[in-house]
Amino acid sequence: MHFADRLLDAIDEKGTPAMVGLDPRYESLPAELSRGPSPGRAAAAEAILAFTRRIIDVVAPLVPAVKPNIAFFEAFGSEGYRAFEAVVAHARERGLLVVADAKRGDIGSTAEAYARALFDEIGADAVTLSPWLGEDSLRPFFERVDGGKGCFLLVRTSNPSSAQVQDLPAGDRKVFEAVADLVRGWGESRLGERGFSSVGAVVGATFPAQAAALRERMPRTPFLLPGYGTQGGKAESLRNAFGKDGYGAVVNSSRGIIFAFSREPYASALGEERWEEAVRRAVLDMREDLAAAVPEAGWRA
Amino acid sequence: MHFADRLLDAIDEKGTPAMVGLDPRYESLPAELSRGPSPGRAAAAEAILAFTRRIIDVVAPLVPAVKPNIAFFEAFGSEGYRAFEAVVAHARERGLLVVADAKRGDIGSTAEAYARALFDEIGADAVTLSPWLGEDSLRPFFERVDGGKGCFLLVRTSNPSSAQVQDLPAGDRKVFEAVADLVRGWGESRLGERGFSSVGAVVGATFPAQAAALRERMPRTPFLLPGYGTQGGKAESLRNAFGKDGYGAVVNSSRGIIFAFSREPYASALGEERWEEAVRRAVLDMREDLAAAVPEAGWRA
Repeated sequence: MHFADRLLDAIDEKGTPAMVGLDPRYESLPAELSRGPSPGRAAAAEAILAFTRRIIDVVAPLVPAVKPNIAFFEAFGSEGYRAFEAVVAHARERGLLVVADAKRGDIGSTAEAYARALFDEIGADAVTLSPWLGEDSLRPFFERVDGGKGCFLLVRTSNPSSAQVQDLPAGDRKVFEAVADLVRGWGESRLGERGFSSVGAVVGATFPAQAAALRERMPRTPFLLPGYGTQGGKAESLRNAFGKDGYGAVVNSSRGIIFAFSREPYASALGEERWEEAVRRAVLDMREDLAAAVPEAGWRA
Repeated sequence: MHFADRLLDAIDEKGTPAMVGLDPRYESLPAELSRGPSPGRAAAAEAILAFTRRIIDVVAPLVPAVKPNIAFFEAFGSEGYRAFEAVVAHARERGLLVVADAKRGDIGSTAEAYARALFDEIGADAVTLSPWLGEDSLRPFFERVDGGKGCFLLVRTSNPSSAQVQDLPAGDRKVFEAVADLVRGWGESRLGERGFSSVGAVVGATFPAQAAALRERMPRTPFLLPGYGTQGGKAESLRNAFGKDGYGAVVNSSRGIIFAFSREPYASALGEERWEEAVRRAVLDMREDLAAAVPEAGWRA
């Protein structure tokens, strides 16, 4: 089944386009899961796996998709990589779509190896990719996209220095707008029944005006909007990134959800022992926030 | 010790700037190392590890550095990732500099996790990185570069569709030239005693005119030139990528070396059983080719 159709159906089923980013930092784990200040990396990898599995169990009924970031697992070497595989498998067992946040980008034969790793071996439903090397670096991923997988290209990222390359003037466009036009082109032949493509775009939610302009530029491209919560994005400012009927974007929050127990208002209300309840409430608050921001959306519960 | 100084010293010691790319494909292994057509991934990972270790043993006396590409290991999941760790460790034991070809590129906290993975856990001497997200995505790597590590930014890649983004006009420059200027700037405060920076650039050797122009643009930046051999690059055309005294670049060959046994003239002369001798001869031929191409070089044996 087409990835964008699966994504929109899952958004309808859960009643929200909220996505939970799984970026576990060992140092930030709740005390009950910590193995002390300097565990071996096998013990640390086990701890972040246990934490992430429990996060998944809490959020599975509440959101359509999760976005585990492989870097936070690779930081614990092959043991961490194995934990990543287990996280993806667990999330899929719980009925979640999994976007492997890997941001890979390499030439043909190497791209084939990465596509095999992320889709065929790990089993992700979609991946994030860099557009820097152009179309032939994406072709092995597109082949799998045509078989039901999805991808999100880094069109405009949410970090301050993204402007150094992405905002360079390219004729009458900026470089990221030229990349947006490429992404639209790659997606045009890959539309699902619900009107969206399986080739998506990462659009930094910290630039709301750009998000709106990019929505016009890529009307059938699913957006992955990072930066909600801790990176300063606001649900209100995301509104224009959605299409007219409120579809076409997923909104990601990572630290703001998974480490909610150490943030207000959850820290005072619940404390560290009730960290899973903090996760649940943070997701519920995000769902409400998004529903209020996109009142016309068909997915509103 | 400063990475560029280590690199130039190793080039002098070995008498060549040739670098061997370690991109093992299970399907291409010599028969003696194959585990049949469809091994489990653990068996396949073991086979590519055994192959790559033996390659390293053959090339260690002949070249200053190797460039294992992590994608070809990730293709076998966590077992492959573990094999990658073992490959890096083995190459360093044999006295080789290791450039982990990973082409990572992500925002701040994720970049920190990747830097930790590749430098602190795996122990690479240098890494390849994408410039698409700008300086703050590189800062965690630069911190380690300032402690003796190195990096190579993807300025101009050797694949055909690299032009789609990298060749866009950016005012009076092209985008890759603007990135080259950024890379020069990042490297200026990071010069070693031998005059080169620890912040390098990947410059596709299939574009010799650009390599020469980029050498002028980045006079103190070490170049990693891929594409020698099978990708169509020629030693002759690489000459301008070196500085006036023949320093400032390493030239990489992957398949042309490690699978030399299946290529002419080595296939006919040696056959598959003598695959290690084919590797050795292919490296010796590449060394000669480079020495002839850069006759003024101080590293010539």
